This record gives sequence, C-alpha cells and structure tokens, in this order.
Amino acid sequence: MTAAAPDLRNELPGRIMAREMAEQPAVLRRILADGAHAIQDVARKIAARTPRFVLLTARGTSDNAALYAKYLLEIRLGLPCGLTSMSTTTAYGARPDLTDVLVVTVSQSGGSPDLVASTRAAREAGAITLAVTNNPDSPLAGVSEYHIDIMAGPEKALPATKTYTASLLALYLFVEGLRGGDGAPAHALPDLAEQLLARQDEVRALAARYRFAERMVITSRGYGYPTAKEAALKLMETSYIPALSYSGADLLHGPLAMVDNVSPVIAVVTDGKGGEALQPVLDRLRGRGADLVVIGPRSQVEQASAGFVLPTDDVAEELQPVLEIIPLQLLAYEVTIARGQDPDAPRALAKVTETR
Amino acid sequence: MTAAAPDLRNELPGRIMAREMAEQPAVLRRILADGAHAIQDVARKIAARTPRFVLLTARGTSDNAALYAKYLLEIRLGLPCGLTSMSTTTAYGARPDLTDVLVVTVSQSGGSPDLVASTRAAREAGAITLAVTNNPDSPLAGVSEYHIDIMAGPEKALPATKTYTASLLALYLFVEGLRGGDGAPAHALPDLAEQLLARQDEVRALAARYRFAERMVITSRGYGYPTAKEAALKLMETSYIPALSYSGADLLHGPLAMVDNVSPVIAVVTDGKGGEALQPVLDRLRGRGADLVVIGPRSQVEQASAGFVLPTDDVAEELQPVLEIIPLQLLAYEVTIARGQDPDAPRALAKVTETR
Repeated sequence: MTAAAPDLRNELPGRIMAREMAEQPAVLRRILADGAHAIQDVARKIAARTPRFVLLTARGTSDNAALYAKYLLEIRLGLPCGLTSMSTTTAYGARPDLTDVLVVTVSQSGGSPDLVASTRAAREAGAITLAVTNNPDSPLAGVSEYHIDIMAGPEKALPATKTYTASLLALYLFVEGLRGGDGAPAHALPDLAEQLLARQDEVRALAARYRFAERMVITSRGYGYPTAKEAALKLMETSYIPALSYSGADLLHGPLAMVDNVSPVIAVVTDGKGGEALQPVLDRLRGRGADLVVIGPRSQVEQASAGFVLPTDDVAEELQPVLEIIPLQLLAYEVTIARGQDPDAPRALAKVTETR
Repeated sequence: MTAAAPDLRNELPGRIMAREMAEQPAVLRRILADGAHAIQDVARKIAARTPRFVLLTARGTSDNAALYAKYLLEIRLGLPCGLTSMSTTTAYGARPDLTDVLVVTVSQSGGSPDLVASTRAAREAGAITLAVTNNPDSPLAGVSEYHIDIMAGPEKALPATKTYTASLLALYLFVEGLRGGDGAPAHALPDLAEQLLARQDEVRALAARYRFAERMVITSRGYGYPTAKEAALKLMETSYIPALSYSGADLLHGPLAMVDNVSPVIAVVTDGKGGEALQPVLDRLRGRGADLVVIGPRSQVEQASAGFVLPTDDVAEELQPVLEIIPLQLLAYEVTIARGQDPDAPRALAKVTETR
C-alpha cells in the first residue's frame, strides 16, 4: 500500500487523516439518509424488550463514543449504565446474570477477538446484544443479536476520526429511537460539520501555541467529557504530547495543582447544563492564570485566553459532541504538522524526531 | 495548622505523606480487628436484598478504590457494575429507576456536596445506598442507608495513601461478606505491608531513573489496573510528571506508539490471571526495547529492565492490589524528593521549580 511508502508520507504528511476528516459531513449525511431507518428499526425491537441496565463495551476511540452513549442513555432515558471491564470476562471468566441487560459493543473494525469473545459470553449470559461497527460483515456483528452499521467507509489513518463522529450520530439515533423519537434535530449536523472543517486556518493559529508544549490538560463536564477524552487520545496518537483528560470535578479534586505555569488547558464547554456545571472550574483556572483555550459558544471563548467558537445556537446540547470534536481533530493534526511530525505515521517518525 | 507552615515543610519535605504511608499496616490491622465484624453485618443485610446491579460513585483516589470493587463484584460475585457519571444526576437531573440497584459511594471525607446529592438522589430513586468513608459522622454517611467506616484516622497529606489501602481492604471484606465469606485470607496483609514499607531503599534506587522523566506510562490488566491508575494519580499529584495509565489491551490499541524511546513504562503484574493476560503486552514492550519496570512476582521482575519484587506466593490475586500500590506510593514520594520538590506541598513548590 502506498500509505506505507515513507517517501510519499514525507511529501504529504497527514494526507490520509486529512482526507478522512474531510469526509465527515458526507458520512453524517449518509447515515441520516440511508442508515437512520435501520437504526430506528433496531431501536424499536430493543425497546420492546425493555432492558433495565446497559453495559457498554469498547476500546480506544470507540470507548469514548460508548461514554457518549452512556450520557445519552442515563440522561435521555434514565437507564443506569456501566462501561465493561472486559478482562473480568475474557481473563477471569466472570459469567454474570445478564437478564434484562442490554450489552452494546462499539468497535470500528468489529474484528477484535476479545470484543467478540466478551459479546458472545454476554449473549450466552442472557443479555440483549447490540454491535455498533463500521463493518456489517465483521465477526462482532455476526455474534451479536442486533447490529448497527455506522457507514463511514474504510478508515485507513491510524487516528480514527470519521468513525468517531459516525459512531456518535448512530448512537444518538439509536437512543432517540429507544425513546420513540426520530432524531430529526440531527439533520442540522452535516452542514455545520462542513462549516467547521472550512475553518482550518483558525485551528492552525491555535496550534502554534502548543508547538513546544510538553503536556496538556483537557477538561469538560457532562456531554463534553467524552469529547475531552477523545481529543486527548487524538493529540497523543498524533503528536505524542502527553494529554491528560479530566472531568472538571476531578480536576478540582487534585490535578489542578498541575496546571499553574505548567500545563496549558483546553476546556470543552458545551452550551447547556454541562457547560454551566463547568463554570466554577473555569473560574478557578482563570483565577490561577492558566493558559485556557475554550472550544464552545462565543460568550465562553471571549472569557478565555483563546479559543474556537462553535455554532451552538440551534444545536441541542446532546448533539454538540458530534461537532465539538472536529476542531480538536484538526488541532491534533495541525499541532503534529507544526512539530514536524506526520499525523499518518506517528510511530515511525517518533523514532526519528523524539530520540533523546 | 503546622502542616501549612512553609518553613517546616521545607525542612522535612514529605514528612506528612511519609507518616501516613507508614501507618498503613496499623490501619489494616485495625480494620481486621475492629471493623470486619461491622462490615460483615452490613454485607449480610445488603445480600438479603439481592441487588442485581451495582453502581459505584467516587472521585480521584476513591474512584480507583471503586474500580477495584468493580472487579471484585464482577469476578467474585458475577454482579454487573457501572461507575457513575455523576453529572448525569447533579447537572442534568437524570432520575433513573434504581430498584434492585446497589449504589456504593466511596469518599474519604464523606463531605463532597455533589457526592451527597447524587447519593440522596439514588436513594430517592429506589437504590440500596452504601457509603464507604473515613468519617462515620459525615453528611455522606448520614444520607446513605448503610455505612462502612474505613477507620484510617485523619489524613492530612494531599496525596491520599492510607485511606486508599484502607478502602481496598474494607471493600474486599464487604464483597467477601456479600458472598458469605469471612475474608480470612486478608489477615496476611498487615505483616506483608510492613515488609514492603521496610524496603524504601530499593524504591529510592528505582526512583533515580525517573528523576528527569518528562512522562511515564503505567499499565496493568485485571485486578492490577486500579493500581496502575492510582499509581499514575500519585505520581502526578506529587511530582507533576504526566503519568498516563492504560489497561494493557488499550495500550496495544494505540498509545503503544508513544512508548519507544520516549516514555518509560511501569507494569503492575499481578500474580494470576490478570498478569497472564498482560504477557502479550509485556512481550511487545520488551520487543520494542521499552524501559520496562515491573512491580510483581520475581519471575516477572527478572525479565524486565528493573523492578520491585512483590511477595505474592500465598496471596490471592484479588488481595494483591492492597500490597502492590505500596511500592508505587513510595516511588511517587521518592521521585518527588529526587526532583527537589516536596510531596506534602506540590502546589506551592511547583510554582517555584517548574516555571518555564
């Protein structure tokens, strides 16, 4: 594959990741046009079985999508949820009684053997099993009773981008379907995503401040917390900057000490209750003179050292995560380019540029 | 309070944290002698109500203790568990139906208003509520139906140490009580903890290799994973080294790229199924030439760059977390001293030593 040819990589660093980020509006449109009906159908069937608890299983980027689903399920549906500790099943052979439990496994490839094994075990233990993948022919989809296709097309870049936003939208439509809704508010997302992608120059200017950063802290609360975790993962996967994500409440309970003079902070401020709950944290950060960059509504960005204004006016809080990750994906990309590395080949280049 | 007097702090850096780490064998003995009966009584009453699902709520160090309890509950009891996303209740007002759900809130002080609010909301929503705190007179204990006292005595140091191991032991005894056991294997812990604390010189030698580290990666699987997270938190709270914790499986799915030549790795290898499941990760790390320090049984330490041998021969895997955190607490302390900072006053000194 040409993706592995170092000469090409060095000529056009990050072109694979850039192409897949740019595909996001088209992927969101495809899900809404061609996938929403099937998702609603799955949701209707699962709702009829009245699950009482939901367990979410995933790794990496998909784990952040699963966390987003956890907020949706708890807030919009009042269903208690947990994220699976997979090794309890795969290494320790735990076989809990999963009657009335919906087990949702999120995996881009649907091919990870331990995810397949834990989903099979869950089904044997009585769970309703749902796989959310980018591959309807995958072993995970095969082993699950229900399947949702996120329709993102092949993803080649090491840092997952379009499969993340596609998973969020699919999970949103699924949860709305569980509560009998049609997910109509999501139709605003593709155009807004396109507008965000067109503002790469703004992100490039922000990236300059992190060119020499040795660490970063990313914080949020509520619906924005999965975004903070996913942004930290993207930054680490591409640029190797140790990026620590904390919920605002956890940040106040300790690691805040790490912030002053030492770590720049990015706050993901959703326009709604999550952003309101983050205000005391933002006040403390400003009070300590932190270098605070805000991704959020204009009023919040204006009180920070710098930021990126999100168009949140007519976007329900629970949908904002689909948008707010996009400037942060672009930021991971631009920071990596600014540091002379290749977002498409972090592993190889790290050996060259980070030897010390 | 003298603890706040800078002159004393600078004369004897870390003396408060050191004193509290040293108290751990005595605290463990006290729980076994004076607390175990009451814990068993609470466990018996809760078992009679046959909870079907457990939600665990905590922050910071207590969150890592809650994660340990999650492994115990899933593996030893087959009860599906989740860690609470607290803002869904406190910021968004979610009111899930918590019939048959046991809500365990772990908090050293028992005073955090949002923990009190979310526990009260859980009780109103039908949950069986249990508070695990170091203060039986706390608001959290008052609002909960059941209470377990971890009996650690006042904790003054910013980095929590003795309340962590005390919480682990109390939670172990509780889960054993739920399954009708008496927790007798735990009686070996106080002496073993004392032996570990006596080996501070070994830890000091290990600490030297991290004096100039700019980041660290800490990994484990299964029962050791909460230890990895807690060790990362301790290192960050005291030394400010960005310490990233990953389950071994998650490390293989991405951040492994960050390891070569860049980040030293500490692996917490429990002697049992968790350690076995970690072997492929350790093989990969060795194959990449990572600087790998192992905390675990002798056979594992001998295959690593360096390490600290844990006495695991007659210790059940589920009890090892109470011991394996101790050398890592000592490591956080010694690394911080080696970097010329004060483990008791990280915030103040960070301003002095880390300005750049």
